[in-house]
Amino acid sequence: MRATILHAPGDVRVENAPEPKITAPTDAVVRTVATCVCGSDLWSYRGVLPVAEPQPIGHEYVGVVEEVGSDVSTVRPGQFVIGSFVASDNVCPICRAGYQTSCRHAQWVNGAQAEYVRIPLADGTLVATPEQPDEALIPSLLTLSDVMGTGWYAARAADVGPGSTAVVVGDGAVGLSGVIAAKELGAERIIAMSRHEPRQRLALAFGATDIVTERGAEGVARVKELTGGVGADSVLECVGTQESMHQGLLSARPGGNLGFVGFPHGTRIDGQELFFSHVGLRGGPAPVRAYLPDLIDRVFDGRIDPGRVFDLTLPLDEAAEGYKAMDERRAVKTLLRP
Amino acid sequence: MRATILHAPGDVRVENAPEPKITAPTDAVVRTVATCVCGSDLWSYRGVLPVAEPQPIGHEYVGVVEEVGSDVSTVRPGQFVIGSFVASDNVCPICRAGYQTSCRHAQWVNGAQAEYVRIPLADGTLVATPEQPDEALIPSLLTLSDVMGTGWYAARAADVGPGSTAVVVGDGAVGLSGVIAAKELGAERIIAMSRHEPRQRLALAFGATDIVTERGAEGVARVKELTGGVGADSVLECVGTQESMHQGLLSARPGGNLGFVGFPHGTRIDGQELFFSHVGLRGGPAPVRAYLPDLIDRVFDGRIDPGRVFDLTLPLDEAAEGYKAMDERRAVKTLLRP
Repeated sequence: MRATILHAPGDVRVENAPEPKITAPTDAVVRTVATCVCGSDLWSYRGVLPVAEPQPIGHEYVGVVEEVGSDVSTVRPGQFVIGSFVASDNVCPICRAGYQTSCRHAQWVNGAQAEYVRIPLADGTLVATPEQPDEALIPSLLTLSDVMGTGWYAARAADVGPGSTAVVVGDGAVGLSGVIAAKELGAERIIAMSRHEPRQRLALAFGATDIVTERGAEGVARVKELTGGVGADSVLECVGTQESMHQGLLSARPGGNLGFVGFPHGTRIDGQELFFSHVGLRGGPAPVRAYLPDLIDRVFDGRIDPGRVFDLTLPLDEAAEGYKAMDERRAVKTLLRP
Repeated sequence: MRATILHAPGDVRVENAPEPKITAPTDAVVRTVATCVCGSDLWSYRGVLPVAEPQPIGHEYVGVVEEVGSDVSTVRPGQFVIGSFVASDNVCPICRAGYQTSCRHAQWVNGAQAEYVRIPLADGTLVATPEQPDEALIPSLLTLSDVMGTGWYAARAADVGPGSTAVVVGDGAVGLSGVIAAKELGAERIIAMSRHEPRQRLALAFGATDIVTERGAEGVARVKELTGGVGADSVLECVGTQESMHQGLLSARPGGNLGFVGFPHGTRIDGQELFFSHVGLRGGPAPVRAYLPDLIDRVFDGRIDPGRVFDLTLPLDEAAEGYKAMDERRAVKTLLRP
């Protein structure tokens, strides 16, 4: 099969590789219908994370079940499935509490930018769609595997509710998905922090009511101005830098909540500042498995269309260009078709 | 009148001072019936906070209204009242959201270890009891001014609910109050971290089901052992050091919550550790004003008896000994009677 291999920072190649096999009775092998490049894939691509040897890459996928292990009972060959970027058993106490990415048996999915991918713990990880989806739904369903579920978790962690005011820090695919989530969860006012015109347009299309182009202290001042001097009920932090976390914290009102899903790169939170902010904080890798059934319904019903975050679609064989376009910020997110 | 003045670290004196006057139409002057020494008063007593010049001290009080300003309408002379350690207007959007200690017009009360104390924003700060309380209720009512309200906030911030498992880090007056709060809010299992036998006894009397004497990694391991390897739903952090925060964070289960009310002394929270913990965090100076009506009822009904945290009662004139006993850890908390 064809598979994307990261050889070294900046060096992505699509090569022939052996097809994955069932290695445990709880595995499934999925024939990938669509996969994509994640902002987090760029860490190794950019050399932020070390690349010791050539490695398969990719953790977002939708596809058709090709084969299942003998213990798998909830999905069967031929079904169209979506799964989380972290495999989970979905039955341990942590999964039952809704935190599948901290499952006791969690395994990070890898190698999804390929024609086939092996998914461990298939029963606890994959969710079949009610029917074979129309081609037009594929991009939106693909986002549920990571970015849309992550935006959803950010909104939940930030306690977005009916009538609330939400600020979204970050206008990448996750931030834009966060706008959709805030809208669906009933936020009345959604302030998107963005200085890129095409992303602003998408944010507005997804339900943002205000765009703030300023950053840092000026961005905070603008949010305060828009919220009667109080700050926002909910802040979705979708970047992960020291600056964005700090900006997010200062944008929330006392008693408000900040959900942070941008992977924290060396961030430190000052205990005293957090104390006096009265802001609640929750982050982490999104337990997207928890949201899949609901989000699949919303996509099938046509209520959400997160697939619009893909602004570049390439054949899998051109994955290298997909990485390059995202690295150079020519694309928000690249969809790859095997 | 007699008033406690902190002259320098370690040098507390009770002296004659002018009685406070109404300085704003929203003020009240309260004749103090009981006051006490707070763990936070020890910061300046120990020289952790600078003492530039002799200063009045004390922020916990119950008493009888002596005089009110012309704008005060909810309390009147002769009423027995309890107030928060932070004065608030109780009507601004932040107060209405339940975070009175972040009120837009917040003022920290000071000088309460005296025969009389001026309370700003009396309408938004003081709550009158339904009747003049029996002498036996005075200590418990006094705790509502700070420590019991703070323990309550810790439990609320940690989202303690029916059937949950709560860990209380810290066995001072706030931690012990946190045990009461966890019990009242329905926690089924309450693990008190304490290595002091008299405090362990009080924790058990207040509703703790387990005592853990180990600290740090060993303490965390013990909590994990007691919670089926998962960690606690709720952790009340009532100390405020780097070690106690870290211990608290590691004691909570993924998806659990940590309420932190120990004033953070130079603590730093690692963003990545918090991210992967999946733990929700909220802290701050407790909005005790929000809880006063409910907690007054619970004291009058005899459901809670937080006054037992006072293990030393002295005449106001012996305040210096009250500080010394707490500083030397001979007393958990000192009540002073003017």
